[in-house]
Amino acid sequence: MNAAIIAVGSEMLTPTRIDTNSLYLTEKLNALGVEVVQKLVMGDHRGRLEASISFCLEQAEILIISGGLGPTEDDLTRESVAAALGRELLFDEGIVATLEARFASFGRKMAEINKRQAYLVSGGEALANPNGTAPGQWIPLEGGKIVILVPGPPGEMKPLFEREVLPRLEKALPKQAIATLTLRIAGLGESDVDALTAPVYKRYENPVTTILAKAGDITLHFRAQCPELGEAERLVREVGEQVKPLLGEKLYSDDGSPLEQAVLRLLEKRGESVAVAESLTGGMMGSRFAAIPGASKTFVGGFLVYTNEQKVGLLGVDASLIAEHTEVSEAVAIAMAQGALQKTGAAWAVSLTGYAGPDGGTDTNPVGTVFVGVASKSGVSRAQRFRFPAGDRERTRQFATQAGLNQLRLDLM
Amino acid sequence: MNAAIIAVGSEMLTPTRIDTNSLYLTEKLNALGVEVVQKLVMGDHRGRLEASISFCLEQAEILIISGGLGPTEDDLTRESVAAALGRELLFDEGIVATLEARFASFGRKMAEINKRQAYLVSGGEALANPNGTAPGQWIPLEGGKIVILVPGPPGEMKPLFEREVLPRLEKALPKQAIATLTLRIAGLGESDVDALTAPVYKRYENPVTTILAKAGDITLHFRAQCPELGEAERLVREVGEQVKPLLGEKLYSDDGSPLEQAVLRLLEKRGESVAVAESLTGGMMGSRFAAIPGASKTFVGGFLVYTNEQKVGLLGVDASLIAEHTEVSEAVAIAMAQGALQKTGAAWAVSLTGYAGPDGGTDTNPVGTVFVGVASKSGVSRAQRFRFPAGDRERTRQFATQAGLNQLRLDLM
Repeated sequence: MNAAIIAVGSEMLTPTRIDTNSLYLTEKLNALGVEVVQKLVMGDHRGRLEASISFCLEQAEILIISGGLGPTEDDLTRESVAAALGRELLFDEGIVATLEARFASFGRKMAEINKRQAYLVSGGEALANPNGTAPGQWIPLEGGKIVILVPGPPGEMKPLFEREVLPRLEKALPKQAIATLTLRIAGLGESDVDALTAPVYKRYENPVTTILAKAGDITLHFRAQCPELGEAERLVREVGEQVKPLLGEKLYSDDGSPLEQAVLRLLEKRGESVAVAESLTGGMMGSRFAAIPGASKTFVGGFLVYTNEQKVGLLGVDASLIAEHTEVSEAVAIAMAQGALQKTGAAWAVSLTGYAGPDGGTDTNPVGTVFVGVASKSGVSRAQRFRFPAGDRERTRQFATQAGLNQLRLDLM
Repeated sequence: MNAAIIAVGSEMLTPTRIDTNSLYLTEKLNALGVEVVQKLVMGDHRGRLEASISFCLEQAEILIISGGLGPTEDDLTRESVAAALGRELLFDEGIVATLEARFASFGRKMAEINKRQAYLVSGGEALANPNGTAPGQWIPLEGGKIVILVPGPPGEMKPLFEREVLPRLEKALPKQAIATLTLRIAGLGESDVDALTAPVYKRYENPVTTILAKAGDITLHFRAQCPELGEAERLVREVGEQVKPLLGEKLYSDDGSPLEQAVLRLLEKRGESVAVAESLTGGMMGSRFAAIPGASKTFVGGFLVYTNEQKVGLLGVDASLIAEHTEVSEAVAIAMAQGALQKTGAAWAVSLTGYAGPDGGTDTNPVGTVFVGVASKSGVSRAQRFRFPAGDRERTRQFATQAGLNQLRLDLM
């Protein structure tokens, strides 16, 4: 079964506010085997809201609308649903009584305007709202489709959904189970990953495959939907087992965890530690390690050596090495990693030096050039040169950080 | 003029991912006097995507579609737009040449699959993408409506929008003069900023005021829209001049620039430099400095001392100080800053030590407690204790970083 979600409220069409109710609703719907196929944010505009309801009901069997159920003139969800469905709005004395009791319990008299909240779409059922005045509505349509109205404030929407909507949905839906598998890949581009894996995943309509790319980080997501959980799990496993060997050592995680976590796990297994020496990234690699709870078991810290003076002063990089090769060079990357290794006593050290732009760079090493150095207690030190897309300083730094983590991972394997 | 935005990508229909491109696009459109009337998230599904495009073009004059322009089979935006508009897709040799040159510049050969990105909707114009392979498209329709395709990754979408879309929109739209003023504030909560400034801004319908809150960082935005630019500028200046004195030294920027830039400017004015010593943040503060182009004039680097051993070993913090006060204490924060100052020779040093959670913390200093130390060449060293909301490790680290930068700013003033 498919669902569409409409979040109603003009404030969510400004540059600073976002609809997050739909994340909660999606999680609950997925758990019932319902896929969300489209999400809309609509303003408090009667005509457009009505049109969006008709559009969603052409595309999905379940439509959940959150918000626009308040007592004021710009709360238009009830009217728009009735118009889109060609149904009447009926005044419900039971809702009025509930509202009046609620106000009385706070020692207040209900304002006349709240009576607007007592209108039910004909054929619909009111859903009690324990935390607010706006009741929800459960509106079954001919042919098995369902429209569900829930209040907008998360503190009202969530308890109402749990208590009133979920039990009704469970009864209404055919039993469906969902299994997912997330593979994460470093050291390959999006199109390379697709070219490698498409021959496998294209043979399956179930599971559905999606590929997502960030700077140097590719996520492959498989999602199977079946009447039985065992069958859904078998399907994603079947695809996963064919895809994994094609990715080889480029695959760093099969549980959705990020690259820094994969690296920390490898270190933990060996009982070893790591330090960093960062130039262009200025702490971005260290910050990624530190973002993982419990990182201090394996990540000890390191050095930010943004200037050449600090490369010499803090890490003991030979100044003549910089003079001869420049600070963006294999020799300096290795010396940085060796310095961090020696000063911290860690078993491994990773260094990053490069040109993030917009200025800097040379003819042989233009902006976007990064050297990753890795040194280990066992005495092996080496550096690798990368050339990333220039033009976006932040992105170059992200690519560099990803390359540093991945180089260490490969050396740990 | 009204606009609709469609974000394309099945991953944004899962419980964990959200479309944020539309916030950026809304801000830019609003600045041109264009209102966003609906936002959609659609999956990688040809039929539904096509239907959503037709729906949006019934409701708005401008339609921006982000994402689905990649080289793979599940990138369906080009095909869906062509189908919805009843136009053909035309293979564009110019785009192929650009793509091939891009791959060649990285020393790679373009995969055959990337040729899918060379199809233009008939009547459309390709928009150069400096940071990726997917070009955007500018497609004028009969009757003055416009469809605009932009890539999904924010690092590609934003520069392409600035360089290619904005100038074309400015030409296409009726002239509207807009003036804006952005004030950024540290050291106050969102509701405090609102309580302080509302008595002023509530008196104005034009400019429109919005308040945006991130961890420890509040942005106040004023936007005036008038037929004449001079009048719009006069209005935002009038409000700004009343609001600024109310914020006092909590106001760190009136040109939209971030806190780290305000700090670097103060240092540059004094001809002084700064180093960092980070524990719980693991490099996040250094990385913020390094994100600013030209930071190396004033930011020299520093130390990541994630373990107590490294606090002692790298910074020379007295081990007995840690034994007596614990590593999350005023004494250790000061010693860390002093150590970084002395080892780097910088004029200023900032240290951060605290409990990010989920584990750790003591009765007196629970998770969320952070000490910020500042030491200066002039001999002054002091530390300040902060208590941030616990429960979200990343957010606590962001709060800590913001507090560290702000403490240094206040001491520099």
